[in-house]
Amino acid sequence: MTADPRLQTLPDEAALQLHADGSLRHLLTLKDLDRDLIIALLDEAESYLAPAGALPVRSDALAGRTVGNLFFEPSTRTRASFDLAGRRLGADVLNLDVNTSSRKKGESILDTIYTLQAMAVDIMVVRDAGAGVPAFIAQHVQDFVSVLNAGEADVSHPTQGLLDLLTIRQHRDDFANMTVAIVGDIRHSRVARSAACGLQTLGVGELRLVSPPAMAPADGEFASARVLDNLEDGLRDADVVMALRIQKERIDDLEGIPGTDEYAASFGINAERMQLAKPDAIVMHPGPMNRGVEIDGSLADGPRSVITRQVTNGVAVRMAVLAHVARAMGRT
Amino acid sequence: MTADPRLQTLPDEAALQLHADGSLRHLLTLKDLDRDLIIALLDEAESYLAPAGALPVRSDALAGRTVGNLFFEPSTRTRASFDLAGRRLGADVLNLDVNTSSRKKGESILDTIYTLQAMAVDIMVVRDAGAGVPAFIAQHVQDFVSVLNAGEADVSHPTQGLLDLLTIRQHRDDFANMTVAIVGDIRHSRVARSAACGLQTLGVGELRLVSPPAMAPADGEFASARVLDNLEDGLRDADVVMALRIQKERIDDLEGIPGTDEYAASFGINAERMQLAKPDAIVMHPGPMNRGVEIDGSLADGPRSVITRQVTNGVAVRMAVLAHVARAMGRT
Amino acid sequence: MTADPRLQTLPDEAALQLHADGSLRHLLTLKDLDRDLIIALLDEAESYLAPAGALPVRSDALAGRTVGNLFFEPSTRTRASFDLAGRRLGADVLNLDVNTSSRKKGESILDTIYTLQAMAVDIMVVRDAGAGVPAFIAQHVQDFVSVLNAGEADVSHPTQGLLDLLTIRQHRDDFANMTVAIVGDIRHSRVARSAACGLQTLGVGELRLVSPPAMAPADGEFASARVLDNLEDGLRDADVVMALRIQKERIDDLEGIPGTDEYAASFGINAERMQLAKPDAIVMHPGPMNRGVEIDGSLADGPRSVITRQVTNGVAVRMAVLAHVARAMGRT
Repeated sequence: MTADPRLQTLPDEAALQLHADGSLRHLLTLKDLDRDLIIALLDEAESYLAPAGALPVRSDALAGRTVGNLFFEPSTRTRASFDLAGRRLGADVLNLDVNTSSRKKGESILDTIYTLQAMAVDIMVVRDAGAGVPAFIAQHVQDFVSVLNAGEADVSHPTQGLLDLLTIRQHRDDFANMTVAIVGDIRHSRVARSAACGLQTLGVGELRLVSPPAMAPADGEFASARVLDNLEDGLRDADVVMALRIQKERIDDLEGIPGTDEYAASFGINAERMQLAKPDAIVMHPGPMNRGVEIDGSLADGPRSVITRQVTNGVAVRMAVLAHVARAMGRT
Repeated sequence: MTADPRLQTLPDEAALQLHADGSLRHLLTLKDLDRDLIIALLDEAESYLAPAGALPVRSDALAGRTVGNLFFEPSTRTRASFDLAGRRLGADVLNLDVNTSSRKKGESILDTIYTLQAMAVDIMVVRDAGAGVPAFIAQHVQDFVSVLNAGEADVSHPTQGLLDLLTIRQHRDDFANMTVAIVGDIRHSRVARSAACGLQTLGVGELRLVSPPAMAPADGEFASARVLDNLEDGLRDADVVMALRIQKERIDDLEGIPGTDEYAASFGINAERMQLAKPDAIVMHPGPMNRGVEIDGSLADGPRSVITRQVTNGVAVRMAVLAHVARAMGRT
Repeated sequence: MTADPRLQTLPDEAALQLHADGSLRHLLTLKDLDRDLIIALLDEAESYLAPAGALPVRSDALAGRTVGNLFFEPSTRTRASFDLAGRRLGADVLNLDVNTSSRKKGESILDTIYTLQAMAVDIMVVRDAGAGVPAFIAQHVQDFVSVLNAGEADVSHPTQGLLDLLTIRQHRDDFANMTVAIVGDIRHSRVARSAACGLQTLGVGELRLVSPPAMAPADGEFASARVLDNLEDGLRDADVVMALRIQKERIDDLEGIPGTDEYAASFGINAERMQLAKPDAIVMHPGPMNRGVEIDGSLADGPRSVITRQVTNGVAVRMAVLAHVARAMGRT
């Protein structure tokens, strides 16, 4: 997992992301988070979960703080998840109308950041289609500001990675004896990269990356994972199966990329194919789903599916990250 | 009022909408609400009204709860009304950017709902251009989630109906000896359908539906109402006159539908024509108005007009409905 | 500064804007605010400033009140500034989706206002591209509603003027012995008009308006200011230099208006040119900046720049104005 330059740590990325005492200042990537820190975040996230139908857990951990949601790519679910996470911790959440048209060059992103910082927005949640943007912002903010990556190009989506880890851990805590299969467009997936990184840190027994050849990762990018182009081999005896979203609108023109029907026939996950996996295996999907393409609708709604639990865990994980950086804020 | 299939109760709609004890679980239509329940909601709404210029009434009836505003049709006033109603009761209100382009088929609406439900959004306020969408959603949510219809195609707009009833009751509480004239595009109006339904339940003396023939309801739809195509007959001795919005942008192409000038000449309501009504008759309009088309501007701003009072009542009625379903939440 | 009809006080504008006791009811323009009132607002704004990195100052001065942000022109920073100012004072803030397409004529603006007023929105923050709109609205609201101008055509931007005054006063409190140079498109700038008005009221020693001839103010508009078309003369021994935004997208087609390269060469402010000013002179810009056009990027980020302090002061000034009108609300 270390050969792809997109996953290389910038010279100072660890120093940038972590305080001297090891607590998180920013969350840009899961790469520098050791096992203890990840476990601590997952444990804190568990504390924010309430029984279904109960009122959500609240606290005043962010009272007086201001969270700015800067989504330069469209998003409904991740934005709403951070919004509710911030509000349930007592923060003011500012949702900004930003789109690529308001931004011609790197400088103007910084001017937007400087403006928000001057308004005492102390946690910036950033989604951007450009690789390196969250780290670039983190390099420029003042000491008392934290930057959280809410989805960065195909590079990183660390809160998604954490929610996936939490969801898997709720199923089985024994990562060393676990087989996880991620199925779909691995090459272009920030979700796969963050999940793979976190799973390696927690010592996953076997990680399989399953995709048509045109969607496979670059040679050597995920050094300790098994790269497979056959779904049956990928699913056999797996404990966890994670289907990735196929972006139908982008797919048909690309050379070597299968059409959606062809993809569904070869890589679509359904109940019958899941019989190859362990009897209690779970099915995950980061959403939004294309039902009937990468995943069958009845499987998504059935007892193996933990897809809505992922959403619930997403709010809890974001609460944990927000509360963690708020506690650590201002350290150097 | 029972012949139009759009007004037929689905086999389980009453069971869907009401708890076993008769309290509201969802608010999809006014059809299943009996007199006592409507009166209770109007009485509770009255308790949320403050004198003009005073601070609005607040409570913590929705503290800890999350209201999701899902408007798949554009809206400013109804969305703002639910937003303020929720916040004044202490809820977190999530306004979602949703539009028809993000939605290709029924399943994806449900996936949006499942996602919000997993984030502990426990009251979903839904506006949609498709008939049956609120009930469809209500059939699929978990036990502890309530769905409120904020405008459904031409079928139903129950909180508008309730605010209209409250406004009329503030004028005169004696429904049995009252004549109400609804004037305009009855055929396509969810406002007219909900008002008519509520007025029948409260035992209105006479309900007149006044429109050009091309905008008249289908034969027999409103069985106990008088259908008229002459404004003078419609207004004579009326206690309440409700003008409906003419959607100018849609009107000129439709065969048999009068142009706006012609409409204003024949069905536009003004002070002179109001002299046919009772001396103290009130004028209502659901807004937004086309001044000079369905209603004269000076009449809208004059002493007979209760149009802004309808807006004020709208917030109070939505507070009452939100508080009611929150109290009843989780019953089966 | 009194010859331009755009700056003329309407017959009743002072009466409209001020209560009988001299406190602010609306804030439409700085023109009627005397020195004592401006100083009181700046002093109150100072009380809302916190050290960098500290939690922002909060109060419950607006508890129970509702602020409506009506931006009929796009805005990110001013809208966010009013939003945070309102929330930090305990208000509910309603951000409305409004754009010019939803508005065909003057009446519909009023109907939007009447609707919000009926929902108990008691402070309306209005930005509009049309001259006179905030005053027009102020003439029509009920006694207990305040209207705040958040940017009106090229006429007025009073909270920007106040934040500029506060920023200058933080640099040096001795207005009588101060030279302020405003550089750029004076003719079309509401920022320049509000700053000039406030500076005159505070007795500024010398006000210079520096621009290419095509951007100069009309003859006699700013009677007591020096109008210059040479940047060196404008900057010499200045204490404060305020660069205005050049709207690149509008500029190239206009006859007599220099292109951006030509403008930067003749009127762009950089560190070298700033050596003409006082050694401790500050540089201001209302934002958003076109770096490399009206201002050099390294100057904007350097020690002379107070640009982000202007943003911080903007929130504080808006809190002061909101708290002031809330205290005065309902007087006649």
